[in-house]
Amino acid sequence: MSELIEKAKKAKTAAAVLAKASTEQKNKALSAISEQLIKEQTFILEENLKDLQAGKENGMSESLLDRLKLNVQRIQDMADALILLTELEDPIGQLVEEWERPNGLKIAQVRVPLGVIGMIYEARPNVTVDASSLCLKTGNAVLLRGSSTAIHSNKAIVKVIQHALKGSNLPIEAVQLLEDTRRETASEMFKLNEYLDVLIPRGGAKLIQTVVQNSTVPVLETGAGNCHVFIDETANPNMAIEIAINAKTQRPSVCNAIENVLVQKDWASNHLGELLSALQEKDVQIHGDEKVQQTGKDIIPACTEDWGTEFLGLEIAVKVVENVGEAIAHINQYGTKHSEAIISESVENVERFFTEVDAAAVYHNASTRFTDGFEFGFGAEIGISTQKLHARGPMGLPALTSTKYTIRGNGQIR
Amino acid sequence: MSELIEKAKKAKTAAAVLAKASTEQKNKALSAISEQLIKEQTFILEENLKDLQAGKENGMSESLLDRLKLNVQRIQDMADALILLTELEDPIGQLVEEWERPNGLKIAQVRVPLGVIGMIYEARPNVTVDASSLCLKTGNAVLLRGSSTAIHSNKAIVKVIQHALKGSNLPIEAVQLLEDTRRETASEMFKLNEYLDVLIPRGGAKLIQTVVQNSTVPVLETGAGNCHVFIDETANPNMAIEIAINAKTQRPSVCNAIENVLVQKDWASNHLGELLSALQEKDVQIHGDEKVQQTGKDIIPACTEDWGTEFLGLEIAVKVVENVGEAIAHINQYGTKHSEAIISESVENVERFFTEVDAAAVYHNASTRFTDGFEFGFGAEIGISTQKLHARGPMGLPALTSTKYTIRGNGQIR
Repeated sequence: MSELIEKAKKAKTAAAVLAKASTEQKNKALSAISEQLIKEQTFILEENLKDLQAGKENGMSESLLDRLKLNVQRIQDMADALILLTELEDPIGQLVEEWERPNGLKIAQVRVPLGVIGMIYEARPNVTVDASSLCLKTGNAVLLRGSSTAIHSNKAIVKVIQHALKGSNLPIEAVQLLEDTRRETASEMFKLNEYLDVLIPRGGAKLIQTVVQNSTVPVLETGAGNCHVFIDETANPNMAIEIAINAKTQRPSVCNAIENVLVQKDWASNHLGELLSALQEKDVQIHGDEKVQQTGKDIIPACTEDWGTEFLGLEIAVKVVENVGEAIAHINQYGTKHSEAIISESVENVERFFTEVDAAAVYHNASTRFTDGFEFGFGAEIGISTQKLHARGPMGLPALTSTKYTIRGNGQIR
Repeated sequence: MSELIEKAKKAKTAAAVLAKASTEQKNKALSAISEQLIKEQTFILEENLKDLQAGKENGMSESLLDRLKLNVQRIQDMADALILLTELEDPIGQLVEEWERPNGLKIAQVRVPLGVIGMIYEARPNVTVDASSLCLKTGNAVLLRGSSTAIHSNKAIVKVIQHALKGSNLPIEAVQLLEDTRRETASEMFKLNEYLDVLIPRGGAKLIQTVVQNSTVPVLETGAGNCHVFIDETANPNMAIEIAINAKTQRPSVCNAIENVLVQKDWASNHLGELLSALQEKDVQIHGDEKVQQTGKDIIPACTEDWGTEFLGLEIAVKVVENVGEAIAHINQYGTKHSEAIISESVENVERFFTEVDAAAVYHNASTRFTDGFEFGFGAEIGISTQKLHARGPMGLPALTSTKYTIRGNGQIR
């Protein structure tokens, strides 16, 4: 039996035990993992060093090495996050709804775990802890498939987690790592409907698309963000510029940062120059349409492709539009249904924008950077869903659950 | 441009209009369709006759011909169902939750349509009306892909629907039929993520699996039902037998009918003979394990395959088990996570069964035949989901919706 099948089977058995685990048991396990991570941090850092050295030898980029790197502070952050997780409400067993039918049947809908979750991710060892703990809290078993470039770190972390699980009377197979990181094995995972209930890819757009395009196991998709700020004719200029700058520059590499500003033409006549200068002061390179090129200096002429590009850096595309209608049409054509903002003092424009823009989150007079499980107050985040089924937008713990109907009768037949 | 792409594009445009349609507008359209179906029933029946004749010439089975057949009563039933649908609450625009963050951001989660739904189904023209009306009520545009064997009926029905839509000021492209029924075109639909938000297959297990296995568009899966009744040692014999008979024979061809009875050995010692005779009196053919073969007459020896078979007819597999634990393990191994019942007077056994059986619906002392949107009181049913994401169990109107977060601020940045 391959490692994948063997571990998948064990995960399924573990999932049945986890589904019955009490909140107290699960929280105890999370605390134990937190403690164990700190206790064994030297071991984890040593193993992480092996990955870092191999990465350097293989010419891994600085930014990838930084993602791969663990240190005392990062391990402390993971340990702290585990304690915060114990304080969150356990969604499992929650009553969603209950009612009685005229024939006397008592129907209840209760939250249950999904079962076994396959997590496919790139070279960030912190995802190993993050994914394991979120799955554990929600009573799911997890089968982790990380990058080969982080294999020593991941093996070390999972060893530490399993060590803690052993002490907490929960099956150690609740958290398992696939040590076989061949591509073919990942492909096998995509089709393992018999044992896996859900796949969650975490990483770049390419990884996610590979999983979405090839999986028959249902996928929790976290997508790309080609987000916009639209400034309408009534927008407060200072607020508009401040929000655009924040949404672009506060952390340009993340999916809820904006890639485009659309400016209504009358507002543009008065304030476009100011907006462009403000962006350029923050070292943002601007791709602009003709009007933008006429107004600003050093503007790169925007090509059609620019409207659909997720720059993920200090680059932005700026376009002048006629009105809110054109802005909405543009966003619905080029956006990725993630986060879209309108800066406006017009109730009418805001309502139209909120109704007609097809996105997980629509903002009025606020930065798109708030699309985040913690900023929303969920206390945890699995990712940000840009799909429409199951969960849309920032996903908290309930996104890792399903429901079950329980029906109590006294002999009812049809 | 192919018919598929052309209609998919139009559907996307129509979906944007439908998303804004008021409940009143949508209900008016549903009433208009109801009326139009009756008005043009002669035309529909004439076209249906063409399909029936072609079916007969091609040697279609009696049961398939019956599914294909329309008559005055069936058209009246469709028309009545449309009126009932107007009386149901409109989920679109409903506030799921709202809260305010410490920074003053006001977050609301509201129900929105999914967008464009691709419906792939077999030779039941009533699905054409059913699917169109459920999508319309929930503000979704639908692209219908029915069977070539029902093409005349479907074309006629969609013509009538579009006629009614025209009069109600909603885009006629809200409901479109693909007239190209080639297999390659359906396969193209599976990958049409650009225009389709969801695919819903309706029909046999084979059709559903083809869609699930080959689609990159998210699928709302309605699955097969290999359902069980487990009779434990405390079960009331009359109730147990009555429920088993009802769950098997009241309508054997549907997914919530049972295919298996598991009997605890002590109960079996006293009542198995009675159960077997009662089933045989209803012309049910019994596949049984050794104990069952010893107890009853004319029992077909059960092979391993029988435990996983959806007979969908007057056939059943019966097994004697040690206890509730063995019953649960058997169900979790062979079941399809649909509907599972325990007949028992033991609170402990019931709780264990409810917690440990992995199914969309678990029953205590009631027939599995109640797993149904109407029996649950939803007033409508899209199908019964056996998947764990998005919706599980009978799906009412909310299953055809997604949500959107609206965030209102006054200049908040991070």
